[in-house]
Amino acid sequence: MLRRMDKPISRFPVPKLEELPPDVRARIVEVQEKAGFIPNVFVTLAHRPDEFRAFFAYHDALMLKEGGLSKADREMIVVATSGANDCHYCVVAHGALLRIYDKNPLIADQVAINYRKADLVPRRRAMLDFAIKVALRAQEIEEADYARLREHGFTDEDAWDIGAIAAFFGMSNRLANMTSMRPNDEFYLMGRVPRPPKG
Amino acid sequence: MLRRMDKPISRFPVPKLEELPPDVRARIVEVQEKAGFIPNVFVTLAHRPDEFRAFFAYHDALMLKEGGLSKADREMIVVATSGANDCHYCVVAHGALLRIYDKNPLIADQVAINYRKADLVPRRRAMLDFAIKVALRAQEIEEADYARLREHGFTDEDAWDIGAIAAFFGMSNRLANMTSMRPNDEFYLMGRVPRPPKG
Amino acid sequence: MLRRMDKPISRFPVPKLEELPPDVRARIVEVQEKAGFIPNVFVTLAHRPDEFRAFFAYHDALMLKEGGLSKADREMIVVATSGANDCHYCVVAHGALLRIYDKNPLIADQVAINYRKADLVPRRRAMLDFAIKVALRAQEIEEADYARLREHGFTDEDAWDIGAIAAFFGMSNRLANMTSMRPNDEFYLMGRVPRPPKG
Amino acid sequence: MLRRMDKPISRFPVPKLEELPPDVRARIVEVQEKAGFIPNVFVTLAHRPDEFRAFFAYHDALMLKEGGLSKADREMIVVATSGANDCHYCVVAHGALLRIYDKNPLIADQVAINYRKADLVPRRRAMLDFAIKVALRAQEIEEADYARLREHGFTDEDAWDIGAIAAFFGMSNRLANMTSMRPNDEFYLMGRVPRPPKG
Amino acid sequence: MLRRMDKPISRFPVPKLEELPPDVRARIVEVQEKAGFIPNVFVTLAHRPDEFRAFFAYHDALMLKEGGLSKADREMIVVATSGANDCHYCVVAHGALLRIYDKNPLIADQVAINYRKADLVPRRRAMLDFAIKVALRAQEIEEADYARLREHGFTDEDAWDIGAIAAFFGMSNRLANMTSMRPNDEFYLMGRVPRPPKG
Amino acid sequence: MLRRMDKPISRFPVPKLEELPPDVRARIVEVQEKAGFIPNVFVTLAHRPDEFRAFFAYHDALMLKEGGLSKADREMIVVATSGANDCHYCVVAHGALLRIYDKNPLIADQVAINYRKADLVPRRRAMLDFAIKVALRAQEIEEADYARLREHGFTDEDAWDIGAIAAFFGMSNRLANMTSMRPNDEFYLMGRVPRPPKG
Repeated sequence: MLRRMDKPISRFPVPKLEELPPDVRARIVEVQEKAGFIPNVFVTLAHRPDEFRAFFAYHDALMLKEGGLSKADREMIVVATSGANDCHYCVVAHGALLRIYDKNPLIADQVAINYRKADLVPRRRAMLDFAIKVALRAQEIEEADYARLREHGFTDEDAWDIGAIAAFFGMSNRLANMTSMRPNDEFYLMGRVPRPPKG
Repeated sequence: MLRRMDKPISRFPVPKLEELPPDVRARIVEVQEKAGFIPNVFVTLAHRPDEFRAFFAYHDALMLKEGGLSKADREMIVVATSGANDCHYCVVAHGALLRIYDKNPLIADQVAINYRKADLVPRRRAMLDFAIKVALRAQEIEEADYARLREHGFTDEDAWDIGAIAAFFGMSNRLANMTSMRPNDEFYLMGRVPRPPKG
Repeated sequence: MLRRMDKPISRFPVPKLEELPPDVRARIVEVQEKAGFIPNVFVTLAHRPDEFRAFFAYHDALMLKEGGLSKADREMIVVATSGANDCHYCVVAHGALLRIYDKNPLIADQVAINYRKADLVPRRRAMLDFAIKVALRAQEIEEADYARLREHGFTDEDAWDIGAIAAFFGMSNRLANMTSMRPNDEFYLMGRVPRPPKG
Repeated sequence: MLRRMDKPISRFPVPKLEELPPDVRARIVEVQEKAGFIPNVFVTLAHRPDEFRAFFAYHDALMLKEGGLSKADREMIVVATSGANDCHYCVVAHGALLRIYDKNPLIADQVAINYRKADLVPRRRAMLDFAIKVALRAQEIEEADYARLREHGFTDEDAWDIGAIAAFFGMSNRLANMTSMRPNDEFYLMGRVPRPPKG
Repeated sequence: MLRRMDKPISRFPVPKLEELPPDVRARIVEVQEKAGFIPNVFVTLAHRPDEFRAFFAYHDALMLKEGGLSKADREMIVVATSGANDCHYCVVAHGALLRIYDKNPLIADQVAINYRKADLVPRRRAMLDFAIKVALRAQEIEEADYARLREHGFTDEDAWDIGAIAAFFGMSNRLANMTSMRPNDEFYLMGRVPRPPKG
Repeated sequence: MLRRMDKPISRFPVPKLEELPPDVRARIVEVQEKAGFIPNVFVTLAHRPDEFRAFFAYHDALMLKEGGLSKADREMIVVATSGANDCHYCVVAHGALLRIYDKNPLIADQVAINYRKADLVPRRRAMLDFAIKVALRAQEIEEADYARLREHGFTDEDAWDIGAIAAFFGMSNRLANMTSMRPNDEFYLMGRVPRPPKG
């Protein structure tokens, strides 16, 4: 398994691929083939296979579903809320995905540092205002917050998506900070340099 | 399905049992038979079956596993962190479970209001200090926090359990506040009055 | 004097009834005859008879006076602000009174945990918004806060009552946390179970 | 009654002396004769005679009692905690008293702005640390806080005094901010200029 | 050089006038001749001559320039934001200047303690709201904040002045707290007592 | 002058080079020749030439001086405190400088997101703890903070440097957020890709 030797990925034991249950291993091999490397969140959480399975089932239910939010929208919510939660792993790894999906090499840093000053259309600003409120002050969410989303064309189902992504990655941010989960070096540069066209 | 008619359970649509996928319905029927009623978290989250499945798989992985924490310890972590997050549903519902598992009719209110003044042995105080730090300031968790847990006999695996429960219910608290999830009236009284012995 | 032997009522000395000045003792005997037990705040504060006298004179001036607020309204202010101040004694003891006066076994837990999600008519929501602002950010109170109360039918005298109760119990919460004042076990269950009609 | 005409003393009605109950009026006349003017807190609170009586009874019980704290110590606690609570009236009025009792024209401004940088002996620094914790985070007070006071020679009774003064003026600060209570112009200069010796 | 012997001006070395570069010394002598004493900020920062030069060049660019803000307005911004930052030196020293420029012996204490309750016309209230937002939550400044200033007659250039003064003294407050910079005793009384007319 | 046409650099007017005073223009031309582009902070602040001069004189006094801190140390302090202040411009622009001076393509993102989880030797961790305390809670700085720096080999003069850089960029962060200063696109990628050796 590809792994940096000098810096620990996690403060907890990190299993070897061959020690893992077949379904967990299969999932990891699949992502490795697609991405070219194994994102550290997979091997960190594989320390607990049952939690691994639930975590990624939840992740897929929120991030791969159809709906009013694009893939870039979803990753943008992750980056903004992970920035608010000071989560090293999620800002770096999902920042890479956001740059790629949004085809914008600047947007992830902007959103992570201060989404209020980022290059955002009003619809996305409203989306992130709701997400950040769920992340930091969910106890104060009220109908007026949903009404503001509707002004920007978001349905109630979209609102659930926004809030649930903020809530799920709030958990993920806490797990990553608790385990000192280290983002792979590969993420830092992904999506920053335009790729030459194939062919 | 048993449901209070006058107060909404959730601000989102609540599905009827017969509309649900069989596995989701089966899980709900099972809990209904065991508890005598359907906790509202089940029908609220059933609005999104994939998320329902992942949520309860994660819940079970954390709350039903073996390990150094008792069932009462686990519910105590839920109540303390849900109190810190001002989550109506989780304090009331898991407060009931904590009273029952701990056979202590006072402990849930104490822990939810101010765990520092609750009737706790030092081991549990340390457990909740770690849980609350993950809930509120996970970005500041460091090795000294693990060391303090070890002084009270907790292993690193116990620490993962404590932190992961705090993180998972941090997500649950945000979902409940976002959906205005209403705890069932039944929970408020559970575990407060000693039951007469059967026979 | 009735007192739990195993858990201290206060971290300060708790006087015996017979040691107290006659007026202080008389007040305690009176409440004992009415309630069936002596609420611990009486014996905790009796350690300082002059402060005891002033405290209860102030309490009575605010809680027993006539005006636009019902007894349940007043106790609801106490419970909401004591929840915001994490005060074990006041949430439990005044939660019992709120359940009884409001004839609602659920309301105290709701208001203590997150009053924004409680079963409240808009008038009471406005009342608690004002009370919580006095409790947590009194330096920012301005005329707009009074205007909002007036929209819900509260007079300026009602506003004084709301704010003064929040301020007085802000003191009480700090005294209770400072002395580790323990609520009597009796309070936890009061008002939760409907009493059978007499006769 | 002496009163500035152009700036309201309180946003609530301010009674005339001759309208007041005799005991309330007597107290006010007494302070007027002693101070040379009527501090505005008296006429503001006289709007509610029962609360006036309880407030000043409590005030006297805490501020005039014998014990390990000097008068200057007590006023210093008021000034530091009122600064933390952004209370205009109490910082200005009690700042005057502190300057006079401590015979130090600089100390009140220092303590109100940032007591950590004030000219304080370690005993007083510890006293104010405890007072500020009661004012801002009473829910976190624990035995270690009392132990630190003992290192500086404070008894448990002194600790009660310190905390009770912080709690009482926490109430007073909230009442003053709620009523927009205006400090008398006279207070600003009191104790700043050395008085020539009589004779 | 005039200096109190018993209390240090700064926790860092304080140079003697004769050790300083001629331009730094000239600036200090100039202020001494004008004020009658050397404000301690000059000798504290003279420990670093290059920083001294840049600091006072910046100070003069902001505080001595022409524009829509009066000298009293500028000092009022300093006092309000320095109060919010708990800065002993700046509240005391610039409080003196504010009293003098505004010919108002009460205003500095009012603004430092709680500007919301100070004797302010609405224009100045809006000015301080903007300044305090730059001091405490600059990351949330948006066009609506500028719009509110315009309602009170402030231009965009005035807005820059307000915000830049808040930002510059935010730096000064941090330097003063870091060095434990002590305000000169002379400042405390300046502007409090009306001066008799000359002649 | 090179400038992105579609996104404003600043919400205030941005002068053309030829309109600027010669010394200001010379400084800008100098940095343009060295960097290959004009960092937007130069043209944003050039709107106010006097402030421009003082700002960069202060910047140079702190960032170019000799002493115990390396250039990378100084930029690291800027990035960590600008991250804490949510400053878009300073995190992006000084992040580029930090990557270059430290020859580490990962360090700037790590430090900006959560310096506690960054790849830091203990000396640098202590340096940033001090800097962050000056940035966020300077009023609580005390001798113990200096003592901790000394344990890691920092002199008092180094401490001044650390704190003064944190204070100066606290001003810069506020100016950048106030003006919505936009970082140049060029900064985002600088120092991320190893340069091929020349020759």
